[in-house]
Amino acid sequence: MTTIQDIADKLGISKGTVSKALNNAPDISETLQKQVLETAVELGYTKLRRYKKSAKKLCVIVQKDNIQYEKPHHFAYDIVMGFRQMAEPAGYEVEAVPIDVSTQRKISYDIFMLQNDYAGSFLLGLSLGEPWMKDFRTSRTPAVLYDNHIIGNPTTAYVGIDNDEGMDLAVGHLKKLGHQKIGYLSSALGSYIMQVRHKAFFQAMHNHGLKTDPSYAGCSYYLSECMEKHLPRFLDMGLTAIICCQDTFASAAITQCQQMGVQVPRDISIIGFDDIPMSPYTSPPLTTVRQDRIEIGKSGYYALSSLLNGVSIGTVLLHADLKVRESTRAVTEK
Amino acid sequence: MTTIQDIADKLGISKGTVSKALNNAPDISETLQKQVLETAVELGYTKLRRYKKSAKKLCVIVQKDNIQYEKPHHFAYDIVMGFRQMAEPAGYEVEAVPIDVSTQRKISYDIFMLQNDYAGSFLLGLSLGEPWMKDFRTSRTPAVLYDNHIIGNPTTAYVGIDNDEGMDLAVGHLKKLGHQKIGYLSSALGSYIMQVRHKAFFQAMHNHGLKTDPSYAGCSYYLSECMEKHLPRFLDMGLTAIICCQDTFASAAITQCQQMGVQVPRDISIIGFDDIPMSPYTSPPLTTVRQDRIEIGKSGYYALSSLLNGVSIGTVLLHADLKVRESTRAVTEK
Repeated sequence: MTTIQDIADKLGISKGTVSKALNNAPDISETLQKQVLETAVELGYTKLRRYKKSAKKLCVIVQKDNIQYEKPHHFAYDIVMGFRQMAEPAGYEVEAVPIDVSTQRKISYDIFMLQNDYAGSFLLGLSLGEPWMKDFRTSRTPAVLYDNHIIGNPTTAYVGIDNDEGMDLAVGHLKKLGHQKIGYLSSALGSYIMQVRHKAFFQAMHNHGLKTDPSYAGCSYYLSECMEKHLPRFLDMGLTAIICCQDTFASAAITQCQQMGVQVPRDISIIGFDDIPMSPYTSPPLTTVRQDRIEIGKSGYYALSSLLNGVSIGTVLLHADLKVRESTRAVTEK
Repeated sequence: MTTIQDIADKLGISKGTVSKALNNAPDISETLQKQVLETAVELGYTKLRRYKKSAKKLCVIVQKDNIQYEKPHHFAYDIVMGFRQMAEPAGYEVEAVPIDVSTQRKISYDIFMLQNDYAGSFLLGLSLGEPWMKDFRTSRTPAVLYDNHIIGNPTTAYVGIDNDEGMDLAVGHLKKLGHQKIGYLSSALGSYIMQVRHKAFFQAMHNHGLKTDPSYAGCSYYLSECMEKHLPRFLDMGLTAIICCQDTFASAAITQCQQMGVQVPRDISIIGFDDIPMSPYTSPPLTTVRQDRIEIGKSGYYALSSLLNGVSIGTVLLHADLKVRESTRAVTEK
């Protein structure tokens, strides 16, 4: 196991200086501190600290520009709560930490974790292009990513719902109601999960023997473009149902339809994804693929504790669950 | 919660008769017992029994025609051991139960579990066409399937390694050694896992920017056909490396190459899948994608205990790990 002495030897400095750098002492230059931290990570010093009592600290890191968690109506609130429900009785202290892209640019993931004394993290809301996503290919501090999948690093794991199953349930539900022509409305494919759901839509259509081609999907970075361009196009194509990549899109689609004089579900059925807190209260209440956020939080802790114990779990997927409400109904003969 | 009285009421018989049927009393006709068991399952009587002390019994069900587990050199021995290592300290009694297709034909999964007082099972070695695979679409007794994925039943879960990652590691290893033309040798695609690996091979080739087409894969039900037909074909095509669907195929391929005067790894590199106990001892020792069988057993218990506690985990995948031994080496310029 790596000791402070090893780091000192490698850098040719004293143990005291290393210790100061690791503990953020004010009389150490920023450059030297950076060197010490990088060397500590390189030598695997994190591994030692995990077993120290002071290191029994975990964090839930939230990309604050993509996801909210502070209040009960925020999507990630229950995820953080589920994580705490498991981690705290097991003796861990849990901190929820908001980060953004500029933090990621300034400091690598491993060094961030070492500097803050976190033994491992559960990360929510990172998009594919963000700096730490590259770090995770080779990082050494256990990281569980919600809705992101890193290939080939045994210290990372992916936790989420089974989107293939969710899409299969959504398409199957619509098919049972007589729908044949089903569209998919999505935000841009800049996140892992948007790519997975997009692919899952076409796979589910195929599995249920329904005709589809690329024109049945509409993806735009801007919600407004989805509503103004793809939604009218879908209606012109004679689609009778639309599955949306997430509930916020489905809710906007309901509103947009109403403004165009198209009634949901009489004229078109709409299904969302996620079951966010507002979804039972849209008008009509939204049929959606539910993610049980408490269970996601619990599974996040389970995956992290497995990694901390050297059991290299890579993926934990929860069963998807279709919440049937009032935004879908049997197709009407015209 | 369903009681014996409910079952008696539904069938219009006495509680005593129901109790006798549930306890295999000899003075109850087979037809009546079948009716009672089916009604018990239909009414969800299993759920009640889970909380009784006597029902703290789990089983590892092994399809004995496809997989062996009794001895340390058998593939599934460590899986059963890993499962026990977690389940027994948690207070469960664990029984390993061999079954075959004819048992599955005689009795449904739920009734088998009820009759034997098992609260849940971990199932190894079922092929896609077997009778119980249909049962699992609607079964109610928690079932964790090793290397089989049931969509849409919240009381089942899938546990295995991440085959996409495993194939990615195998292809990446070969590419780093200079191999460009890589073949895939597989048994018939009659099991879920063979389908997954077959697809993962082409995906990994694509991800690594290597040319491939369907002729780069050879699949046959009979090992002999793979060796006599596909292997010589691969050599004629000028392939420099072959990935096999499992170690037994890789081991046979090494032998077949030797008989044809082709040296492994000088003339062709060979990679297996699984890292079965014999793989370090083939000649040359086999480079292979390792499945840590103890960890699979532990993860099987984790998934099952989640299902028993109402957390509907659907998939748990372990990180794959490439064991580099001597059956692969840098491609030789000719």
